Amino acid sequence: MDSTVRDHDLAYDVFSRNCPSRGALEHVTGRWGSLTITALYDGTFRFNELRRRVDGVSEKMLSQTLHALERDGLVHREAQAGNPPRVDYELTPLGREVAERLLSLIQLLEDRMDEVLLAQGRYDESRGGR
Amino acid sequence: MDSTVRDHDLAYDVFSRNCPSRGALEHVTGRWGSLTITALYDGTFRFNELRRRVDGVSEKMLSQTLHALERDGLVHREAQAGNPPRVDYELTPLGREVAERLLSLIQLLEDRMDEVLLAQGRYDESRGGR
Repeated sequence: MDSTVRDHDLAYDVFSRNCPSRGALEHVTGRWGSLTITALYDGTFRFNELRRRVDGVSEKMLSQTLHALERDGLVHREAQAGNPPRVDYELTPLGREVAERLLSLIQLLEDRMDEVLLAQGRYDESRGGR
Repeated sequence: MDSTVRDHDLAYDVFSRNCPSRGALEHVTGRWGSLTITALYDGTFRFNELRRRVDGVSEKMLSQTLHALERDGLVHREAQAGNPPRVDYELTPLGREVAERLLSLIQLLEDRMDEVLLAQGRYDESRGGR
């Protein structure tokens, strides 16, 4: 094994602004990336189905998000023959692993939102209300 | 237990654009939120120490990020007496739980970056290069 391969654990570091892993992290955590990936954890979706699931996303933003995730190898895009042609989106195996991590984070936040809302109330009160 | 409390698992849903949990998710996954929280997992930092760790963040963005995380109850800000006064930032217990989920996601991406870079290469090639 040469040293380039052996050192990869050290070589990729999201804290370095020029490391490609930072871009990948931004794609999966960005405003729509995390919701798109976790929505796809439930199965295969067409574009408009996915758009309904990710409440609030624009057509343009969902399209950009899906292209970035496809390029990173996290989402698989399958064009089906037919008239009109049908395009399905699903997670790749790596995409599913990423989705599991995101779901664990989302579950934690949903479970603890009472605590978050209390903290927000205390913070706003200490600053004279908002 | 009244039904409001009992139904909380259903009540909070990041997929609904108006649910407060979506805002909390955006704070911890936003461009700088995820890096700031995971950096703080290593201990207590002063503002400028943290800014050096989160390579590329501006003073304004780090300040906004810390305020949002403090308001959500994920980061604790402690002003120490002294001249000049010193301000320390550290994670709350809930912040540490969030950081653990984010670290698991970051570790996965760093470990699998070779696979991501290969996918990017294939994607770009199939579109005639970039």
